[in-house]
Amino acid sequence: MAQTTVVALLHGPDQPGLVARVSGWIFERGGNILHADQHRDMEAGVFFQRVEWVSASGADMDAVNAETSAFAEFAAGLGMKARLATSARRPRVAVLVSKFDHCFHDLALRWQAGEFAGELVGVLSNHPDLAEAAAHYGLPYELVPVSAATKADAEARQLAVLRGWGADLAVMARYMQVLSADFLGTWAKPVINIHHSFLPAFAGGKPYHQAHARGVKLIGATAHYATAVLDDGPIIYQDVARVTHRHGVDDMIRMGRDLEKLVLAKAVRLHLDNRVLAYGNKTVVFD
Amino acid sequence: MAQTTVVALLHGPDQPGLVARVSGWIFERGGNILHADQHRDMEAGVFFQRVEWVSASGADMDAVNAETSAFAEFAAGLGMKARLATSARRPRVAVLVSKFDHCFHDLALRWQAGEFAGELVGVLSNHPDLAEAAAHYGLPYELVPVSAATKADAEARQLAVLRGWGADLAVMARYMQVLSADFLGTWAKPVINIHHSFLPAFAGGKPYHQAHARGVKLIGATAHYATAVLDDGPIIYQDVARVTHRHGVDDMIRMGRDLEKLVLAKAVRLHLDNRVLAYGNKTVVFD
Amino acid sequence: MAQTTVVALLHGPDQPGLVARVSGWIFERGGNILHADQHRDMEAGVFFQRVEWVSASGADMDAVNAETSAFAEFAAGLGMKARLATSARRPRVAVLVSKFDHCFHDLALRWQAGEFAGELVGVLSNHPDLAEAAAHYGLPYELVPVSAATKADAEARQLAVLRGWGADLAVMARYMQVLSADFLGTWAKPVINIHHSFLPAFAGGKPYHQAHARGVKLIGATAHYATAVLDDGPIIYQDVARVTHRHGVDDMIRMGRDLEKLVLAKAVRLHLDNRVLAYGNKTVVFD
Amino acid sequence: MAQTTVVALLHGPDQPGLVARVSGWIFERGGNILHADQHRDMEAGVFFQRVEWVSASGADMDAVNAETSAFAEFAAGLGMKARLATSARRPRVAVLVSKFDHCFHDLALRWQAGEFAGELVGVLSNHPDLAEAAAHYGLPYELVPVSAATKADAEARQLAVLRGWGADLAVMARYMQVLSADFLGTWAKPVINIHHSFLPAFAGGKPYHQAHARGVKLIGATAHYATAVLDDGPIIYQDVARVTHRHGVDDMIRMGRDLEKLVLAKAVRLHLDNRVLAYGNKTVVFD
Repeated sequence: MAQTTVVALLHGPDQPGLVARVSGWIFERGGNILHADQHRDMEAGVFFQRVEWVSASGADMDAVNAETSAFAEFAAGLGMKARLATSARRPRVAVLVSKFDHCFHDLALRWQAGEFAGELVGVLSNHPDLAEAAAHYGLPYELVPVSAATKADAEARQLAVLRGWGADLAVMARYMQVLSADFLGTWAKPVINIHHSFLPAFAGGKPYHQAHARGVKLIGATAHYATAVLDDGPIIYQDVARVTHRHGVDDMIRMGRDLEKLVLAKAVRLHLDNRVLAYGNKTVVFD
Repeated sequence: MAQTTVVALLHGPDQPGLVARVSGWIFERGGNILHADQHRDMEAGVFFQRVEWVSASGADMDAVNAETSAFAEFAAGLGMKARLATSARRPRVAVLVSKFDHCFHDLALRWQAGEFAGELVGVLSNHPDLAEAAAHYGLPYELVPVSAATKADAEARQLAVLRGWGADLAVMARYMQVLSADFLGTWAKPVINIHHSFLPAFAGGKPYHQAHARGVKLIGATAHYATAVLDDGPIIYQDVARVTHRHGVDDMIRMGRDLEKLVLAKAVRLHLDNRVLAYGNKTVVFD
Repeated sequence: MAQTTVVALLHGPDQPGLVARVSGWIFERGGNILHADQHRDMEAGVFFQRVEWVSASGADMDAVNAETSAFAEFAAGLGMKARLATSARRPRVAVLVSKFDHCFHDLALRWQAGEFAGELVGVLSNHPDLAEAAAHYGLPYELVPVSAATKADAEARQLAVLRGWGADLAVMARYMQVLSADFLGTWAKPVINIHHSFLPAFAGGKPYHQAHARGVKLIGATAHYATAVLDDGPIIYQDVARVTHRHGVDDMIRMGRDLEKLVLAKAVRLHLDNRVLAYGNKTVVFD
Repeated sequence: MAQTTVVALLHGPDQPGLVARVSGWIFERGGNILHADQHRDMEAGVFFQRVEWVSASGADMDAVNAETSAFAEFAAGLGMKARLATSARRPRVAVLVSKFDHCFHDLALRWQAGEFAGELVGVLSNHPDLAEAAAHYGLPYELVPVSAATKADAEARQLAVLRGWGADLAVMARYMQVLSADFLGTWAKPVINIHHSFLPAFAGGKPYHQAHARGVKLIGATAHYATAVLDDGPIIYQDVARVTHRHGVDDMIRMGRDLEKLVLAKAVRLHLDNRVLAYGNKTVVFD
């Protein structure tokens, strides 16, 4: 019989017995816990948990849905917010691009290789450049040009496209436009961005130029959830690479492509595996 | 009221409900779980768990001891082996050295800085060289020379010294003698060794010379539990550093000192935090 | 006027004045040295140098060729072997593949992005699987099946294909056949292989399985020149990634793909930039 | 016969033939170049070189001094500034500390182990805490308390102490006072500082608290030359370590100690090996 696994991401005020109660609830319903991981933010008094279990309901999706609803209610009774996902539904991912193609190819090839627990469903761009590449991967391509004058209209069209694709996640793969606070609020689903610096250093434009001018010995990349404040959202993953005085801005751009690809792919993977819980301006990553 | 925390390291045949049963047992006795982490070796069908909780018994050590005994019995009833430790008893660590002092200084300074959940209790050496350094840190120093002819006698004396110190763990901080299978069997407590290569590459003597001769581009260090087979015990931690054609054997030895210090200290720290569970020839490290 | 740059890779018995003589020779002919780097192997008494200069001959290729010939003669007079390359001729690279496509896509995308100082000219495979991918990049695809019985014939065909493409370098991008000593001797040009372990650990087949069985805490990848002895040629570049007890063989294979891509691409890039000088079983990499 | 090696660090306007002229000058005087490395800042049109040679003057220090003077004159004739050092004179290093002892122990142990091409000559502190540790290493300890009111007087005393020791380099080993622009100007010799963040992120006070508040996934340390602008001087070396949501500020402080030790020691080593050339707000590090 086919298995269905459920993942719950919980957080709320800490109190004794949460681990026992959650695992007890699952055990009583015949669930078998595959992984359970917790974290306490001692200062804030917040408890976080990721728990993944095999549901006793097998492939009976009505039963599985009833179980996740019941779990959410149970968690609410403990004062906790719960986000639930099941293996029966693969999240749908839209990719936003401009002209740079390295992150896009990287995401598409990983998707084809089966590295992601989700489906790429479309490519949204403000430029026509990557249309052919998208077609090669069998992905629909929507061109929505953006200018200062047309920004509001463009964002309305972008929203319609994302909703039309039934997207659960938008990934900015070196998409060179800022998404407005209005857009993010209306969309109300996660957006992952890759910034080509080790944030909070070198936020804003031309971070490799900034890094070169400052003479740093490491360059970085940061994947974070986009928020209304530019380059300021909760950080999911970061990495760095060593540079020397010999590396000009062009070398940094080239080396940075590898960093950007790896860091963005790792963040998308973690998100799709339901391992990331954002709270305030930070993340808990159950890796 | 003073708190006592308990850590249990469990492993045994996997079966449904283990997470719920263990956390339920603790919850019923008023314990508050601080951390719980599990692992399943799917191939071997083995379940591993590290669970740490605040005992309801507070500073009443008789009650705490009764609780740990009861837990061990409970775990045995589930078919699992349990290793239990409490914050009330700090493990006692003996350090074995020869002439190299870098790992010894590093361990002693970290101990003084409060980085270890344990106490250094003595230094055992086959050479007199580090006696003064040990005295500086206020540590007893026992000199037990070892030669091929006197090895059996020397090991008997070493055992007596370790037992006299009430040591729970022996750390070979670049100790240049092999401990015999007899010694390890009689001692029957963990021994952590640092080998100056990325095992299994370059086991045996002069690993930096071997690495230089082979022309590798990374050198490594490996901390592992000592077993009767040289350089073959369960690996706890490893790290590497980049080298080039410019690095001769002497440079590798110098750079390797930093690797050896960091890798050994990390392994000792993980062990003293009761985060390492060895099984077969491998380790589960609940980091 | 168009510039031509020349790179010379020299090695031979060390003697005083080599740096001055080489730079003097270039200066006298109006050349402008862009980079010069040296290394002495003190034990072996060997001097190595990479020197790159702008030739005074500009785009006059007859003059440039006369200059490189004269330089080779000059170097020979100093008892040194010289390998010379000019920016006027981009090396031609053949890629050997089997069924795995990740290293191939990575090389092809980097080539398209202009990251290599050379041209991909064809794909040679013992399986038909990647034919379409090669076509997508506009690369000819030659299928030469290999079996134990047909190995000699197959290698003869492979040689003919490589020569037909005018290839200067063959890159084994997870090509799953061993090239025979005969093939390597007849081909007599460099072959770069990627091995999916941190050599010399886990040479031979199924290195991730070996790594998993041993319980190492880091996995690696090694790019090296292929020689008649399997997995034993001069190492160009290596890197590692951290793994834990949670990573099964499948996870290692997935994580290893990123290591393999990055390590192979870096080695190919270094080679095409004329930065790698192999001698004996080691390399000098002027990075 | 004893050897004397000379290192010259040069920089000035780029022009053709510099490599040939410098190496020719040395060759004509019977010098044997051990290492020569160059860099061109193409934008700024500046040429940088580090060249190290065995002087033909052997242990005759008058002759060696004449040679270095002549070289400086020769370099000036080429429009270049030259900094010259010989193996005959080991630089003298003063260490500035406050209460943290980890960087101090690390520097002192490396000095004892012979890792530095220089001598520790004294410890200067605004607190008495490390006096005994300094005595243990046989180092003089000067206590100069600093308060806002006494800062000018204190700096005058500090200068007198440093000069009394004949110090060539001051190392701020987690010294918790800012050195004034006046002090730096009067002292007019290099000062290396370790800042416990990945600059330019988290300059100023309490960088680990800042890092924790921002939720970064890597913490860093930066060794730089101190200038009149706090945490803004030319960066010599940086490194990072991975952190997760589990690491509180205390964990970051503990992990940061290792970063600070390694990064500061590396920077001091590079400086004492005459491998660092600061210009503008950046460094060229001939590693």
